[in-house]
Amino acid sequence: MPSGPAAGGEPPESHLLMVFGATGDLFRRKLLPALYHLMREEGIRDRCAVLGAARSPLTDREFREMSRAALAEAFPEDAPVLDRWCDRMIYYQPVGEDPDSYRALAERVHALEREHGLGGNRIFYLAVHPQVVPPAVRALGEAGLHRSSGWTRLVVEKPFGSDLESARELNRVLHRYFEESRIFRIDHYLGKATVQNLLVFRFANPVFESVWNRDRIDNIQITVAEKDGIGSRAGYYDRSGAVRDVIQNHATQVLSLVAMEPPPSFDAEAVRDEKVKVLQSLRALRPEDAVLGQYAAGEINGSPAAGYLEEPGVAAGSTTETYAALRVFVDSWRWQGVPFYLRTGKRLPARLTQVAVTFREPPVALFKTYDRDRPPGDVLYFRLQPDEGFDLLFDVQVPVGAPRLAAQPFTFNYEDAFGRLPDAYETLLHDVMRDDRTLFVRGDEVEEAWRFYALALEEEGRPEPYRAGSWGPKSAERLVAAHPRGWTLAPG
Amino acid sequence: MPSGPAAGGEPPESHLLMVFGATGDLFRRKLLPALYHLMREEGIRDRCAVLGAARSPLTDREFREMSRAALAEAFPEDAPVLDRWCDRMIYYQPVGEDPDSYRALAERVHALEREHGLGGNRIFYLAVHPQVVPPAVRALGEAGLHRSSGWTRLVVEKPFGSDLESARELNRVLHRYFEESRIFRIDHYLGKATVQNLLVFRFANPVFESVWNRDRIDNIQITVAEKDGIGSRAGYYDRSGAVRDVIQNHATQVLSLVAMEPPPSFDAEAVRDEKVKVLQSLRALRPEDAVLGQYAAGEINGSPAAGYLEEPGVAAGSTTETYAALRVFVDSWRWQGVPFYLRTGKRLPARLTQVAVTFREPPVALFKTYDRDRPPGDVLYFRLQPDEGFDLLFDVQVPVGAPRLAAQPFTFNYEDAFGRLPDAYETLLHDVMRDDRTLFVRGDEVEEAWRFYALALEEEGRPEPYRAGSWGPKSAERLVAAHPRGWTLAPG
Repeated sequence: MPSGPAAGGEPPESHLLMVFGATGDLFRRKLLPALYHLMREEGIRDRCAVLGAARSPLTDREFREMSRAALAEAFPEDAPVLDRWCDRMIYYQPVGEDPDSYRALAERVHALEREHGLGGNRIFYLAVHPQVVPPAVRALGEAGLHRSSGWTRLVVEKPFGSDLESARELNRVLHRYFEESRIFRIDHYLGKATVQNLLVFRFANPVFESVWNRDRIDNIQITVAEKDGIGSRAGYYDRSGAVRDVIQNHATQVLSLVAMEPPPSFDAEAVRDEKVKVLQSLRALRPEDAVLGQYAAGEINGSPAAGYLEEPGVAAGSTTETYAALRVFVDSWRWQGVPFYLRTGKRLPARLTQVAVTFREPPVALFKTYDRDRPPGDVLYFRLQPDEGFDLLFDVQVPVGAPRLAAQPFTFNYEDAFGRLPDAYETLLHDVMRDDRTLFVRGDEVEEAWRFYALALEEEGRPEPYRAGSWGPKSAERLVAAHPRGWTLAPG
Repeated sequence: MPSGPAAGGEPPESHLLMVFGATGDLFRRKLLPALYHLMREEGIRDRCAVLGAARSPLTDREFREMSRAALAEAFPEDAPVLDRWCDRMIYYQPVGEDPDSYRALAERVHALEREHGLGGNRIFYLAVHPQVVPPAVRALGEAGLHRSSGWTRLVVEKPFGSDLESARELNRVLHRYFEESRIFRIDHYLGKATVQNLLVFRFANPVFESVWNRDRIDNIQITVAEKDGIGSRAGYYDRSGAVRDVIQNHATQVLSLVAMEPPPSFDAEAVRDEKVKVLQSLRALRPEDAVLGQYAAGEINGSPAAGYLEEPGVAAGSTTETYAALRVFVDSWRWQGVPFYLRTGKRLPARLTQVAVTFREPPVALFKTYDRDRPPGDVLYFRLQPDEGFDLLFDVQVPVGAPRLAAQPFTFNYEDAFGRLPDAYETLLHDVMRDDRTLFVRGDEVEEAWRFYALALEEEGRPEPYRAGSWGPKSAERLVAAHPRGWTLAPG
């Protein structure tokens, strides 16, 4: 069945949500609150039994206590509702590496399905360390859990491999037990309201779609900036770096949505086919299109911040990049010649994710005597986080004083219009329940993205240092020097 | 010399501003406060001597007192500055219909020019009843005042005739003494910041200019709505009506700015040439393109309001229209087939002036299952008054609940960005001083507009009644029935 948001808002069928790694952070901080919102707002209260699984030998009761405590902390006013729901719908089953524990799990699953009348519908959510994903999928499969009288779906979290070869191997394991149409790869960026809205913005609003091409657009920038350093994640990060951690997944997903052609329908496969075409149209990276950086000591919020090489757990003399800026070309009829810039970094001056679409200058500068040195041209900013919304920077005449133009934003803010935005996990979990794969990453997308970034990943040299608290290495400024605005961010 | 706002912000040359009708409302309520602002903000404090003229036998001192009182009421905090300026720069000369009084005026002018070193630069501002304009211009000319060692400029207020023939006759009189390039015809709508900005908005922002055509735009509406009835103006209004009072001038000026081609430069003549071309491209009106109405008794702000025929001073059985809605086509390459709707009326539910540019629907309704009955398509609103600004209504996905789209506005408000907006008269007076004719109506524009509306003016039938406090006659709804949104106004 075609899915996609167009499939409408029917409540999901009754099912069992099995979370592996249920004693971990992701479950407590993200999945449980998301479930809570869905339970309250989307009519799934009695349609979703939750079975936590992890190595710890907890009882149902202990796991319920843990869940209830996490929820009560977040939503103290709703305690009675939560109590009842946790007691009825939340279960726990310890699972080790041995096949026996998976057989026990299977029995438990069958029992719960009978008890709640869940019709064999199962979601396996792997909230576990990446290394545990392949063995867990194999064990699930060997225990026969992936087959039932209902439907079964597998949810996996990034990273999806660390290069093309490992991504292919991961896909092979997943596909052994799950068809691609039953796999939901989560890139939580795609669950953000503003990211989803990129497609609606483009394809429901012909004002913008009709200027969305090389004739009208000068360049497009995607910025994923972090203020934090690597914190306690050196173990993971020092082997990954900025390209693997952010560019290959989040930034590239956003690129696909911004650059894709209109799909023939809003069906999940139609949308993802178009996203893959963007990746297939990427011109091979040249060394001069990539700037990699690594933060040196500096200052954040007025306090001294250590350099990357001084962070605990980082290998001596590590050449891992904590900053990447790339110039990318999509060799399609629509985008030929328009540079897309992707940048991300740690220890930058702000935490934000934005897309900036800079339009070309007017073909005739009628107002040039007004203000000679101002960068001309309109910019459309998508603020993906924080303060989700859009700004369209356009030129108006200043109504007082000597005649001059000023760039002013047309502004739209999500929260002003709609109140609280759902967390990405809320959206994505709901989509898994409704079998809507539009916002999930398909296996071929993952592989195409790794293929494209191979060159940036093989880069051997030492990354260019930049001061913590600055906007990155100097070469990154040179990368965009051809554009009068350079790197550009939404006003305010 | 080419002028236009592009000419920059140099202060004007020293000059004498002669206001005929200086004891009237326009001088006190509009011109004086405008002068005050210019004097304070534009560096004209000692460059502009004001000579009031009217029939009343006032002295300089009495006229200064009157002026000072009017200004002090509006700007009490600035009394000392005002006192000094009024005493130095404000003068009065009684002027009757006899040639002698104009000879006396001429002597006074020469004396003031010598005293203040004004170099013979003169602005004649006719703030008088339309019937007085031709004799006043003749008398000025016969007294030789239109010639000097400096420059002379003539400012006239609307109406510029009441049909093509009378407009031609008026132009003949003006041109006998003043070249067209020295005549400043004021349509105060053109002085509004948002109206001026129509050109900047269009030609400095390629995002919009590139969709500004028949391929992308469904229809354009210009609404000039008034809440008031005719008040005490029956004497004028009952002989004029809505087409003469608003459509032929204000609404048509706005139409020209919205529809014109980009001029080769922002020079005043280049801009006005393009405006005239729009008028010359108008397809002849057909009877079915015009709806005329007349307000009947109704309700405004919860209070009963009399019908037009019951208003004091209105002729018994008058067929004067107080409402007009017209469908107009611009037969140019850009606009062929796109209807422009112009409407105005008295006793409507709100006082506002807006332009609404409705874009075509997306070529493919990708999101059609979301929300079947909603009018699709984006609308750009120019709010010319009140709350000057722009709204771009566009579709976003509602981030909560069942998938659906909602039209939401991108918003820009002038006062939020720039604080107090200058009054239209401030802008226009300043432009007269700087010899910038861009925002003034050229003689051929006036004649072309009268030529076009001849059919609507000749309409003999009885206008269709509408309830005071409603949005006009039923036929006006039928006029726009082909467009899913019907008549549309900015949200909020």
